[in-house]
Amino acid sequence: MAENTHRVGPVVDFTRSPHAVLRPVPVNAVKLHDTFWEPRLRRNREITLPAQLRQCKETGRIDNFRRASGRKQAPFQGLFFNDSDVYKWAEAAAYSLATHPNPKLDADLDAVIAEIAAAQQSDGYLNTYYMFERAPERFTNLKDMHEIYCAGHLMQAAVAHHRATGKTTLLTVACRLADCLYAHFGPEGKHAACGHEEAEMALVELYREVHEPRYLELAQRMVEARGQKPPVLGGSPYHQDHLPFLEQQDFVGHAVRHLYLACGGADVYAETGDPAYRATLDALWTSLTQRKMYVTGGAGSRWEGEAFGADYELPNDRAYTETCAAIGSVMWNWRMLHLTGETKYADLMEHTLYNAVLPGLSLDGTHYFYQNPLSDRGKHRRQEWFGCACCPPNIARLLASLPGYFYSVAENSVYVHLYASGTATISLPSGGEVTLTQQTLYPGNGIVFITVERSTGDAQTLTLRIPRWAEGATIQNNWRHGAIVHAAAGGYVSVPMPQVGETVQLRLPMPVQQIESHPYVLVNQGRVALQRGPLIYCLEQADHADADVWNIHLRRYTDMTPDLVPDLLDGVTVLRGHGIAHDLTGWSGALYAPRTSKAKSEGRPVAITAIPYYAWANRESGPMQVWLPITG
Amino acid sequence: MAENTHRVGPVVDFTRSPHAVLRPVPVNAVKLHDTFWEPRLRRNREITLPAQLRQCKETGRIDNFRRASGRKQAPFQGLFFNDSDVYKWAEAAAYSLATHPNPKLDADLDAVIAEIAAAQQSDGYLNTYYMFERAPERFTNLKDMHEIYCAGHLMQAAVAHHRATGKTTLLTVACRLADCLYAHFGPEGKHAACGHEEAEMALVELYREVHEPRYLELAQRMVEARGQKPPVLGGSPYHQDHLPFLEQQDFVGHAVRHLYLACGGADVYAETGDPAYRATLDALWTSLTQRKMYVTGGAGSRWEGEAFGADYELPNDRAYTETCAAIGSVMWNWRMLHLTGETKYADLMEHTLYNAVLPGLSLDGTHYFYQNPLSDRGKHRRQEWFGCACCPPNIARLLASLPGYFYSVAENSVYVHLYASGTATISLPSGGEVTLTQQTLYPGNGIVFITVERSTGDAQTLTLRIPRWAEGATIQNNWRHGAIVHAAAGGYVSVPMPQVGETVQLRLPMPVQQIESHPYVLVNQGRVALQRGPLIYCLEQADHADADVWNIHLRRYTDMTPDLVPDLLDGVTVLRGHGIAHDLTGWSGALYAPRTSKAKSEGRPVAITAIPYYAWANRESGPMQVWLPITG
Repeated sequence: MAENTHRVGPVVDFTRSPHAVLRPVPVNAVKLHDTFWEPRLRRNREITLPAQLRQCKETGRIDNFRRASGRKQAPFQGLFFNDSDVYKWAEAAAYSLATHPNPKLDADLDAVIAEIAAAQQSDGYLNTYYMFERAPERFTNLKDMHEIYCAGHLMQAAVAHHRATGKTTLLTVACRLADCLYAHFGPEGKHAACGHEEAEMALVELYREVHEPRYLELAQRMVEARGQKPPVLGGSPYHQDHLPFLEQQDFVGHAVRHLYLACGGADVYAETGDPAYRATLDALWTSLTQRKMYVTGGAGSRWEGEAFGADYELPNDRAYTETCAAIGSVMWNWRMLHLTGETKYADLMEHTLYNAVLPGLSLDGTHYFYQNPLSDRGKHRRQEWFGCACCPPNIARLLASLPGYFYSVAENSVYVHLYASGTATISLPSGGEVTLTQQTLYPGNGIVFITVERSTGDAQTLTLRIPRWAEGATIQNNWRHGAIVHAAAGGYVSVPMPQVGETVQLRLPMPVQQIESHPYVLVNQGRVALQRGPLIYCLEQADHADADVWNIHLRRYTDMTPDLVPDLLDGVTVLRGHGIAHDLTGWSGALYAPRTSKAKSEGRPVAITAIPYYAWANRESGPMQVWLPITG
Repeated sequence: MAENTHRVGPVVDFTRSPHAVLRPVPVNAVKLHDTFWEPRLRRNREITLPAQLRQCKETGRIDNFRRASGRKQAPFQGLFFNDSDVYKWAEAAAYSLATHPNPKLDADLDAVIAEIAAAQQSDGYLNTYYMFERAPERFTNLKDMHEIYCAGHLMQAAVAHHRATGKTTLLTVACRLADCLYAHFGPEGKHAACGHEEAEMALVELYREVHEPRYLELAQRMVEARGQKPPVLGGSPYHQDHLPFLEQQDFVGHAVRHLYLACGGADVYAETGDPAYRATLDALWTSLTQRKMYVTGGAGSRWEGEAFGADYELPNDRAYTETCAAIGSVMWNWRMLHLTGETKYADLMEHTLYNAVLPGLSLDGTHYFYQNPLSDRGKHRRQEWFGCACCPPNIARLLASLPGYFYSVAENSVYVHLYASGTATISLPSGGEVTLTQQTLYPGNGIVFITVERSTGDAQTLTLRIPRWAEGATIQNNWRHGAIVHAAAGGYVSVPMPQVGETVQLRLPMPVQQIESHPYVLVNQGRVALQRGPLIYCLEQADHADADVWNIHLRRYTDMTPDLVPDLLDGVTVLRGHGIAHDLTGWSGALYAPRTSKAKSEGRPVAITAIPYYAWANRESGPMQVWLPITG
């Protein structure tokens, strides 16, 4: 596969969506060469993707396709939705090929696609679980068996593969499967949906890729199939079947599913512009961000049902905060950003990426968290793989496509959403094309230089995201010469596109902030979380030989000093300061005691070092916590 | 049925157990006429028991027995373990007949027993779910299907019925079923146990009742069947099958099950005296009381698996704290008390009874909590019944037998465990018999008068429990004339048995205490719970028109004043004082915000009224919480 022979597509193709106000750029438009993301993306390509393909092979996930195609006599292996992991891996591999062509990976992917294609049935049906003796049960239990969910992941992989390589090998399979779904669940079929949402957004993306309006129609039917009377999925909040989508006001039930439904709703809205969709999406966003979200951006408070909790129910030790839910939120906010052009979606997308997705992956790129607690005694450790392995390839596909999330365009303006050193060549709807270079140590430092390397045609403005936390941000056009202007936090600020060779300097102040929770989050009362720039911090035991980090209190007016430590945790900016360490004086094994009965521990000063939360559990195990008690 | 013709037995018959140091007294030895328990016990007899029998009938639970006996053509109704609810109701009815003979209830119980007996199979097998087409599956899935659990509840009902009435109608059924179990799982059968413990303690009790050593042998086999390699129950902590019982150090998995297993272990120990059992029981008690128990005495932190959590994992809003788990703890502590004579078990039994069992029942006696959260926004309300209705008849059987928990005896001493006005006629192992009257307003007031009404033979000492919270307790023998002596809190104190007509005055000081949690219970840091005497208190919205009780802080040195309010919640002693009400100034919908960004709410003084936690959710719904934040 040669580079440049094919015009690569974006992540979620709003290019022609009538109700999107921003347009994404091709995944390969951006070349990162920063110290934060580029090493992670390389690790994703070089270590994670091969390791995951090996896992898929060793756990029978590939064999299941061979079996389905009649090439292997063996029982079905693993969980009934294991096909989806192979599809997510294929999607990740495709995006990786888009940014970094690699003949070995290209061949590996072609081989996997051949396995997939061979397993497709003559009517387009494809699910390796429902083969042979189980074939009569196809589409008989949509609520529980994830058939359409798996189909959705196949479509997303196919779309990514086509966008990345121009090849139609997987796209053809996806279209045949989508046609099969349309025959069963289109206007001539049953009004139904899958218990696990995913196909909704996938069908809209497939529609965008092949311009087949039936796919959009089917996506909309599926979004709107929920919450009917009688219910098609049992009517439970777990399946988001308790209310019609257009009446939903709150995130409930299985967190990944509801976030994926929101993605599907946003995709349908981008094409149809139904204002009722927009109202629902807004209500859901309010539900998430004002009542049901962790300070990390993570979502899903309950282990039972991998579910959202009640309003303000945000336990730290038993936070479920599935990595996939965070990924769902990134995908959804990416969509909302393009529908609206509003900073708050990009802010949350970035915040969730750093603080709720990244913790799901070890620094070595081969171990994963499924759940992401915000406090722990040291028992929660990342695993190499899971029986239900949804998270690992989900992280891989997001990281592989990440360059596509940095910029968007609108008419003759370039929008900069994320900051990292790199070069981007961006075509504008107005016909212009501009090549920009970012130079920055972000997220460790808030100074960003953006230089225009090349510019043709009409590229009039550069629109910079000023994150909500960046109070006092400034922009200097024509660095060293131009005026320094203040930029309001929490907005996009447009400046004239610099001349070729000119540099814009953006300064995003990154003071250490003590974040408080709404008082109804009872577990966080009297506590603060530390945030600097886009990063949430935690205390981890490995940095505190002298005190249990569960017993360290912050002083109310503590100054914490950022300190870049290049050889710690792949290079992190830690926060250093002093706290008060309490010991367990007077407790001697008791669980409860009258306040007056115990020797009073005044505590002793102790040096504290906070690390970015995403980096926890990469050293020896021990207590960790994000929310720190505040003293006097 | 005439009173006095049959000598009624105790609750758990340690009368001849070689390794018990205390002996229980007959359930009918105690006649309560106090204002706290007696009205509850009457409501239990007059309202709860008839309502529960009606529920058992209306939900098909009785029909299931008719169906099994071939007298009714109908499908099995409800959950596969629904027989156990009928058995628990029968046990409750039996204890009620022991203390309050009632021809109508006696006839109702006889009728239910006839239904049960008719459903028994020729080989002694009895489980209405495994009939007809399911008969071949009997005992094929002990892990999940609760067959032996149901059998255990039948045995406990039969033992109670025999102890209460002397009738053998149900006892015969129970023995035939126990013989059937012995044939399958005794030395000639499979080494196995039930996924849900219960039969262990039941078999020991049946052994005590009919002196059949095979039943004790089978109980011990079942206790020791867990944790084997290969496992008999799948090897999971959920089923307490992860370790052999004698290697268990921690409460894990399903809370009710593990507590019932501890009961079974204690019962086996009482008969065998194996010191390894005692060591395990001690370790488990430490696990519960030092790391895994709510301040109410409730147990079970997780909704998923109705399970114990990790050490110090004690969420308040999502506390599971199943009412049945609290009942299991009461039953277990009652056993441990007799094995040891140690106050701490009686203290915890009483504490759990008031603060973790009683909240499970509405004041009107007809609505139940399955879960008992310690903070709530007003959505958690008691229900009339449940599909899985384990808790309602479990409360009923405990309340019906409660008079049996007030006293025990040891040689020539009467032990007083619980305090409430009433009369008890107690026979001593030494041959003496003494009639005592308690007069007290306990738990609202800590002054208790105990008068000896009659005494024959050798009754040398009166042994009074001084609860751990009762610092500064005093005892005055020969009230008004004798010396006032101090009694150490947290112990049993023996005084010479008063002469007939003489009164002992016990004074248990009941200051309002602010209880703190071990610092590792992160959710309670900076908070206190209010306790007075044996009662844990909470703030409920109904008493606080001016402020949301989730936003009320206590001052560190607040004085709370007890105030008996006879017409509130069936008569409660409330605690009155002042706190600081914060409002939501500066939050305006935000979930997180930097500390410095918000208008500072200094709070305003507000009158607060705390009610006993057991009485919550009996008025209009609204926020409630037990753990109150402490300010400055």
